[in-house]
Amino acid sequence: MKVTYQGVPGAYSDLAAKIYFGPDIQARPASTFDELFQNVISKKADYGIVPIENSTTGSIYQNYDLLAKHKLFIVGEIYLKISHNLLALPGTSIKQIKRAYSHPQAILQCQKFFQSHPWIKAVNAEDTAGSAKDLKSPDEAAIASTEAAKIYKLKILAKDIQTNKHNYTRFVIINHKPNKAVKSNKVSIMFTLPHKPGSLYSVIQILAKDKINMTRIESRPILGKPWQYLFYIDFEHPSLDILKAIKKHCAHLRLLGHYLTKSNPQD
Amino acid sequence: MKVTYQGVPGAYSDLAAKIYFGPDIQARPASTFDELFQNVISKKADYGIVPIENSTTGSIYQNYDLLAKHKLFIVGEIYLKISHNLLALPGTSIKQIKRAYSHPQAILQCQKFFQSHPWIKAVNAEDTAGSAKDLKSPDEAAIASTEAAKIYKLKILAKDIQTNKHNYTRFVIINHKPNKAVKSNKVSIMFTLPHKPGSLYSVIQILAKDKINMTRIESRPILGKPWQYLFYIDFEHPSLDILKAIKKHCAHLRLLGHYLTKSNPQD
Repeated sequence: MKVTYQGVPGAYSDLAAKIYFGPDIQARPASTFDELFQNVISKKADYGIVPIENSTTGSIYQNYDLLAKHKLFIVGEIYLKISHNLLALPGTSIKQIKRAYSHPQAILQCQKFFQSHPWIKAVNAEDTAGSAKDLKSPDEAAIASTEAAKIYKLKILAKDIQTNKHNYTRFVIINHKPNKAVKSNKVSIMFTLPHKPGSLYSVIQILAKDKINMTRIESRPILGKPWQYLFYIDFEHPSLDILKAIKKHCAHLRLLGHYLTKSNPQD
Repeated sequence: MKVTYQGVPGAYSDLAAKIYFGPDIQARPASTFDELFQNVISKKADYGIVPIENSTTGSIYQNYDLLAKHKLFIVGEIYLKISHNLLALPGTSIKQIKRAYSHPQAILQCQKFFQSHPWIKAVNAEDTAGSAKDLKSPDEAAIASTEAAKIYKLKILAKDIQTNKHNYTRFVIINHKPNKAVKSNKVSIMFTLPHKPGSLYSVIQILAKDKINMTRIESRPILGKPWQYLFYIDFEHPSLDILKAIKKHCAHLRLLGHYLTKSNPQD
């Protein structure tokens, strides 16, 4: 089974893929999220694994936009605890480190570490494991996973350095076909609304009157229609029976996926 | 009157401030949004002007987070049409330009321009007008306002280069005190919800049953409480009478401001 993710081996997406699908997948690293989606569309990969939200820094909006742009389906999800570490070349000590490279979101998640280690300057880079892979100088470090330390033979100078210890990322699994005949309990939809007061209320009312748990609501701008929005809603429900009622209140409705959720981890 | 904004003279925030308050304000440029908020808190400035949402690229999430972090108030808003231009040193032509610097959001808003001018590489920089100010080489350009061209004596090589011509930014005006005795028709609130199904519905229902126009709903993560959210809602209403009913359904409610809206421009 071929699975595509953004980053290089040791990336959090790589770990999430191996936990979700097992260690024997054929990984297809993509350098960007655009390329990840293209890998699934062109069937270079059977599945893609896409980070969609982090519990500390919020939605990964670019990937919401890519879900809207491409006609792919969510077929599963996984929550991964994100534990950041300061990695450097073997033989170095934390006092030597002048610069630490990582993805901007990882740097944001480690702000207190940088406050308490003022001699280390945070530098934005393309990604976490990629920063670990590229380390060459003894006064430089990367923020990445412990797996990245193993893969690139680096020393862990500081462990679990994220400010908020309860730091999770939700990934969705994408495929070019929707799930069939799989026990599912979570639904993801996206929709636009007629431009009148109360239209969002009408949709949410349908969920509320059946006591359906809406786990997420997100919105993004619609290009060329200032101040109108594309809404994304996730809710827990074993069937798709309710979509017909929701559709009546939408200008346009698309099912993103119906899949099996794992309960939200809270530690 | 002292007004603080993020950026340097010629920034879109600077233009918005001069349109909102008139040309005679004493501008207090801040290098970051954090500094902008601090300028208002410490009363170095009477007002701050904060971009909160762009119609092409969406919410400016960092500023939602800063509104939550600091106890300031929204006392007004202004919508500015954002027209990007390619600026370079006098005597240069567009064929010479190898790199164009600007804020990442401005670059995102000009993606088609870069596709049709493949010899120009987009380079992320701190801000738009700052990139114009810093131009030194004849093979470099900046994406910024026509006002930045005037201020820094640059040539406009290409006008109105944003992909989507209907490109607006909404700015909010912040102050350390709420509006008093001002005719107001728009309310901004933020709230958290009890963790149970239907809680968001209960809030929105109060607006819907009075046919109140909810112009925006936004949400951001709450630190340390994975998958719980801080919601931001804007709605059009001349009084604050409705807040008591909303508060009953919230875990915590804060009024961000009650102010005069100008109608949303759509061109």
